[in-house]
Amino acid sequence: MKALFLIMDGLGDLRDNGKPTPLEMAKKPNMDGLAKEGALGQLHALGMGIKPGSDTSQLAIFGYDIMSEYPGRGPLEVLGSGIRPMPGDVCFRANFATADKSLRVTDRRAGRIETKLGKSLERHLQGIEIEGTKIVFRSTVEHRGIIIIRGDRLSGRVSDTDPHQNSGKVNESQALDTSAEAKRTAKILNRFTLEAYKRLNGAPENAERARKGLPPANMVIARGGGEYFEVETFRQRHGLKAACVAGGALYKGLASFMDMDVIDVKGATGDKNSNYANKAKAAVQASKTHDFVFLHVKATDSFGHDGNREGKASIIERVDKEIIPAVKGRFDLIVITGDHSTPCLLKAHSGHPNPFLAYGKLVRQDKARKFDEFEAMEGGIGSINGEDVMQLILNWIDKNRKIGE
Amino acid sequence: MKALFLIMDGLGDLRDNGKPTPLEMAKKPNMDGLAKEGALGQLHALGMGIKPGSDTSQLAIFGYDIMSEYPGRGPLEVLGSGIRPMPGDVCFRANFATADKSLRVTDRRAGRIETKLGKSLERHLQGIEIEGTKIVFRSTVEHRGIIIIRGDRLSGRVSDTDPHQNSGKVNESQALDTSAEAKRTAKILNRFTLEAYKRLNGAPENAERARKGLPPANMVIARGGGEYFEVETFRQRHGLKAACVAGGALYKGLASFMDMDVIDVKGATGDKNSNYANKAKAAVQASKTHDFVFLHVKATDSFGHDGNREGKASIIERVDKEIIPAVKGRFDLIVITGDHSTPCLLKAHSGHPNPFLAYGKLVRQDKARKFDEFEAMEGGIGSINGEDVMQLILNWIDKNRKIGE
Repeated sequence: MKALFLIMDGLGDLRDNGKPTPLEMAKKPNMDGLAKEGALGQLHALGMGIKPGSDTSQLAIFGYDIMSEYPGRGPLEVLGSGIRPMPGDVCFRANFATADKSLRVTDRRAGRIETKLGKSLERHLQGIEIEGTKIVFRSTVEHRGIIIIRGDRLSGRVSDTDPHQNSGKVNESQALDTSAEAKRTAKILNRFTLEAYKRLNGAPENAERARKGLPPANMVIARGGGEYFEVETFRQRHGLKAACVAGGALYKGLASFMDMDVIDVKGATGDKNSNYANKAKAAVQASKTHDFVFLHVKATDSFGHDGNREGKASIIERVDKEIIPAVKGRFDLIVITGDHSTPCLLKAHSGHPNPFLAYGKLVRQDKARKFDEFEAMEGGIGSINGEDVMQLILNWIDKNRKIGE
Repeated sequence: MKALFLIMDGLGDLRDNGKPTPLEMAKKPNMDGLAKEGALGQLHALGMGIKPGSDTSQLAIFGYDIMSEYPGRGPLEVLGSGIRPMPGDVCFRANFATADKSLRVTDRRAGRIETKLGKSLERHLQGIEIEGTKIVFRSTVEHRGIIIIRGDRLSGRVSDTDPHQNSGKVNESQALDTSAEAKRTAKILNRFTLEAYKRLNGAPENAERARKGLPPANMVIARGGGEYFEVETFRQRHGLKAACVAGGALYKGLASFMDMDVIDVKGATGDKNSNYANKAKAAVQASKTHDFVFLHVKATDSFGHDGNREGKASIIERVDKEIIPAVKGRFDLIVITGDHSTPCLLKAHSGHPNPFLAYGKLVRQDKARKFDEFEAMEGGIGSINGEDVMQLILNWIDKNRKIGE
């Protein structure tokens, strides 16, 4: 039996002065149909009231222990960019930014430069070695990139150089614990920051931007440091061959971290213009060779961060129309949920549970009539934590191992 | 206050293409009456979605930690046969089987020989000593028996000699870890297997079977190896004097492992012909001298394994008629549940929760109208795990200790 696991990022929401949640607003006859025939529950990915990031939440949902198996955001972004780090590599997310002479960051995104310029600037940052370590820099999309520090005696426990606002001075990275490794790594990152500034200031691309009156992309700021390590694969842990269909780099990175097969889908962009029909087709295709397909939709979260209730509802309607009919009947189990709530009212993640829907032959039907946060409160599956999700799924596709005799 | 704890083995089930579950099908006015006056919940014996055996599940329900306090099936079967092993004994379940000259098992049950023949053959297997250990073999019911290896430097971490199908060669037992003890134990079991084959082939009982054209019971195959150890008794752990009323050897063995008093009941066979009226009488009788009576009914599970929905429903109806009225009013608390689901659709155990019913003066009444899987989803007790059960029961009979002041 085969399972489709659909995460709509940041799905859960709150009513606001009588305004319904996006799930309540959206016309979604297909999801409501699955709810009628299936069952609902409430998912607390990291536990009741706990506010998760997408990375920790999804790792927990896939059955990993975030206290011992979460490598930090950096390694996941590196994996998502298509690079597999070596165990021990310290990885960061990075931005091209604009800094003035006193290293004050005047634009954290260097005027949101295009991917092409990022790729061009990348070549100036090659071959940097500091204190016996190699620094790998790769541009990814627009102003974004990744940094890897590779060598001995390193630690991921260092603070960001990214000031996280336009105006602060570029931060000096600090050790986050008392280890010599963390001190050494912070020092190396700080030296790289100055070296990158020097090299990028001299780059012809920036001279041309100056001529055009554009802010130079003359700085690289880093955040989300973490040391990459290998974990037991999803297949080893759950006995399921898994595929991932996602647009966003982080979700591909997460899948890659667990050694799921990451399927490249044309038009899957991880934003509101993503091609959901193509993602649905890819998921159905993947079901022929895989037991478990993880399908991720990002734009619900993005509209939540924008506080755009109608936008979020429109994404739910698109998923309902473009994905659900295409996958129904093609899997023995369909599970739909969110990784965390992103209430429009808060424009940020929250610790509210997500509605959780399961539909399949081995799912006991409850009395749910539709799929939303409030119907989910009375669902027959009840309140579940992230660590329960894979156990429930394995049971609903009859692939769990018996404990005892 | 006194509690009756009734486990209907493998009780929980699934609907199948519109066919209701056995609990939905069965006419059970007495259980539904308890549900109306009491409250329901859903029991996940080992946790959500986890598929338990009866042994692990019931240990967990009785408040034992299956990671550190589960001895394996062998010791429980030995206890159930009325023999108390010594700590360190390695115990197995065994079958008389038929093997050909190349040790291929042609019948795992030697034509389902009668108990009388098993008892007669048993005497040929006495006094066997291998590498300084003593081997105890006892015939139990029909083709079944138990093996104990008693001595120094032994381990229960060895594989079965039972090929688990008619046609495979008798397995050579292997160590399941790298210890010298496991290697030594596997070797001793393999030598016992050959010795038993030699002795049984020469037994006059088998010469007579040959004359009648019956397959010889010339081999003993072993499974479920485990090392017996003592655990805190049920009374030490929960402060309750407990009795067990059960037909099946495993359940008597489990009760014995926890040092419950095992009551022998005439006609309690552990199959569909078991005398439930006698079991109910024995339970009521036991309540005069015990705080807690564990009453076990096996046949619901057996019909589940057969995929026989009507058969399973008929057992529920018999329990409703022959047990419930006899115990109602005789206990201050009645709890009814299953240890795991055995859906007729799957003909096997599953990880679906069991409906859980509590009825008594100290149970807060919920809105339940009847006792089944779907009504239980909305029950006021909510979702509970095995480890919660004894705490709930102790509270409902006001015998729990206060934590703090």
